[in-house]
Amino acid sequence: MSHFLQLALLLSLILLTAKAAGYVSVRFGQPSVLGELLVGILLGPSLLNIMGFSFVAHELSEVVQLFGELGVLLLMFLAGLEFQLDEMRENMRVAALAGTMGVVAPVLLGWGIGLLFGMTQPASIFLGLALGATSVSISAQTLMELKVLRTRVGLSLLGAAVFDDILIILLLSVFLAFTSGGASGGLEILLIVVRMTLFVGFSFLFGMRVLPWIIRQVNRLQISQGLLVATLITMLVYSVAAEYFGGLAAITGAFMAGLMLARTPEKDRIESGMHVLAYGLFVPVFFVNIGLSIDLRGFPTQALLFTAVVVLAAILGKWLGAGWGAKMGGLSRRESVQLGAGMISRGEVGLIAASIGMTNNLVGANEFSAIVVMVLITTLVTPPILRALFGREADREKEMPTEAEQGWASSAAPSKVEAVELELSS
Amino acid sequence: MSHFLQLALLLSLILLTAKAAGYVSVRFGQPSVLGELLVGILLGPSLLNIMGFSFVAHELSEVVQLFGELGVLLLMFLAGLEFQLDEMRENMRVAALAGTMGVVAPVLLGWGIGLLFGMTQPASIFLGLALGATSVSISAQTLMELKVLRTRVGLSLLGAAVFDDILIILLLSVFLAFTSGGASGGLEILLIVVRMTLFVGFSFLFGMRVLPWIIRQVNRLQISQGLLVATLITMLVYSVAAEYFGGLAAITGAFMAGLMLARTPEKDRIESGMHVLAYGLFVPVFFVNIGLSIDLRGFPTQALLFTAVVVLAAILGKWLGAGWGAKMGGLSRRESVQLGAGMISRGEVGLIAASIGMTNNLVGANEFSAIVVMVLITTLVTPPILRALFGREADREKEMPTEAEQGWASSAAPSKVEAVELELSS
Repeated sequence: MSHFLQLALLLSLILLTAKAAGYVSVRFGQPSVLGELLVGILLGPSLLNIMGFSFVAHELSEVVQLFGELGVLLLMFLAGLEFQLDEMRENMRVAALAGTMGVVAPVLLGWGIGLLFGMTQPASIFLGLALGATSVSISAQTLMELKVLRTRVGLSLLGAAVFDDILIILLLSVFLAFTSGGASGGLEILLIVVRMTLFVGFSFLFGMRVLPWIIRQVNRLQISQGLLVATLITMLVYSVAAEYFGGLAAITGAFMAGLMLARTPEKDRIESGMHVLAYGLFVPVFFVNIGLSIDLRGFPTQALLFTAVVVLAAILGKWLGAGWGAKMGGLSRRESVQLGAGMISRGEVGLIAASIGMTNNLVGANEFSAIVVMVLITTLVTPPILRALFGREADREKEMPTEAEQGWASSAAPSKVEAVELELSS
Repeated sequence: MSHFLQLALLLSLILLTAKAAGYVSVRFGQPSVLGELLVGILLGPSLLNIMGFSFVAHELSEVVQLFGELGVLLLMFLAGLEFQLDEMRENMRVAALAGTMGVVAPVLLGWGIGLLFGMTQPASIFLGLALGATSVSISAQTLMELKVLRTRVGLSLLGAAVFDDILIILLLSVFLAFTSGGASGGLEILLIVVRMTLFVGFSFLFGMRVLPWIIRQVNRLQISQGLLVATLITMLVYSVAAEYFGGLAAITGAFMAGLMLARTPEKDRIESGMHVLAYGLFVPVFFVNIGLSIDLRGFPTQALLFTAVVVLAAILGKWLGAGWGAKMGGLSRRESVQLGAGMISRGEVGLIAASIGMTNNLVGANEFSAIVVMVLITTLVTPPILRALFGREADREKEMPTEAEQGWASSAAPSKVEAVELELSS
């Protein structure tokens, strides 16, 4: 069987199981993303090996990985598209406080735990940093499904994630500059800050002044799916630029691209096209792939106590830290708890930190495994926690007729915002 | 730069240049596919190397290749979706005659040329077979763009391509069975015929009885992009099954999947979703990738006469052969010339045949290059030839207001068929 046929078969399998598991998950009152994550773990690399493909398993899983990475960009792009910049400005204070406190608390906790378990000073700081980085894609998807992304909590959460990303990357860079022992530490950090500022400033300027004009021109031309292709290119270029020039995560770039295009008159058509690409193919692959990359057999049974403490610190540190920040920023108690919960899930930045630690001999195999388990568990617990905390709002939404029930015959057209939210969940 | 960022950058580049070249091509009165093919050749592997990616060039181009293969499946699926089975039945006679004669003529010509240039008997037969296989995707795309796919010529052309695929694979199998010298030749061929028949029969039965029911059920469930995912899975499974169980080309399977879903009430929504996936991302990659895989520096300047004769035989043999068959089947002279021209372009089957010949020492480097050049030239000349031959029809279509010009305000709604054709070209 050729490589392509193997990929085609694997994609069919991933899409089928993802959508089936997502559907079952929804039937049990959970967000579909939980089912898709779990099915990935069940399929696992073990299953792929059983299938006995001649395609080197590594190559096949790399291709699936690339599909998944496109998926997370599309997901964050759509989250950005939900935003209005003025809404973002309104929630800036909450976002900054929640983002900062949500980094500080778990970093300090991790540092303390490291010292408590007899790790060296640098290793302990590093452990703290590995616990710090939120990955907001799972929460964004969950809030979209619960139709509460465009509430004050949802908007502040996405903003906080941007601050979180900037802060943790700054801290990691500072740390590595110091441990590498270069005297140029201060200069390097200044350089990073300048890079980030320049990137964000230039992206906003370009996105406000030039991009809408380009989109309008392309839309006028008779190019097959021209608007969608222009959007896709914008998203990809922003993502690459965020990582390459800005030193930020690629998903932050994709989020910014969405933010910029949210203001264009073509927004609704952009959204429906990107939604097809996202939920028809790439996003399910992303969620399943998170699970696929986890081999449960490799997990250590020793160091269970250490792992448990790390996981607990990661969850509580983020939840309480970000929640406290949100409260200071002016959210209600209930909203702060919701926002903090949305920050719990970790992702690729935590894993990247862990591997940096391994290659620099800062952490050993046990600590590495503990971080991986932490990323996994925080990812899995976030959707059900959010579902429980948003229960009231989400159930109220459920009483509204859904798009499918309404059909085309309905005369009571939903309002603009509701229509967009309905589409996102359909 | 990570592998993913490199892929993201490359995809941006491919999409940007493909759509720009396609647009320029249309401005010059040519189908956009011609521009996309040419830009691929210009980008070429040379350019990729210049970019100096650390990602092993081989791996990156393999991923782009996989994207392109998904693209050609989507393209053929959409072509199938344009069909009505009864229309296919009506044009069966023309399709069978044009498909058969379109294989016989170039195979005989190639055989003769081989003997004329002093090749051995088996090598000469093999050369003929390599000239036989049409790849209809380029023509299908061109006819869609010219809005003449659903004419008698377009429908017969797609049917003829199916016969062509079946016949050439049968002949290649017979040939290889004989040259491998096994006594079981006859039995093997019988087996291939049985496989093909069983696959086609089972696919039709499943597609007529079970598939519409599945699609209807999925459509009822509240699954994000459920209909599209079900369609995608159907297309992938049909493609894999066609190659793995049926011994046919994967694109024939994708075409059949489209044919089956053309009868469902969900057809229009399937079409608009698959159109986004196809023309928003994968199909441009397919066309550019055809060009990308060609390294013009590798082409031999010796054996120019041989190459020229082979290319001429490939074009004339197919054109006249398929055209004559179409005439016998009852098409008008003008229609027969059009159909024959649509069969000229060759594709992966020709290249696959060439590499089989190389590994079995049937052809040398010169013959191999000649076949590759033949595939390239037949692919490039087909869109402009079709454009010229369909000029009258296409220009008549052009006088109709386009979707963009019509806008939403127009009261004169286009008829169903026109609306679909407009969408395909939009």
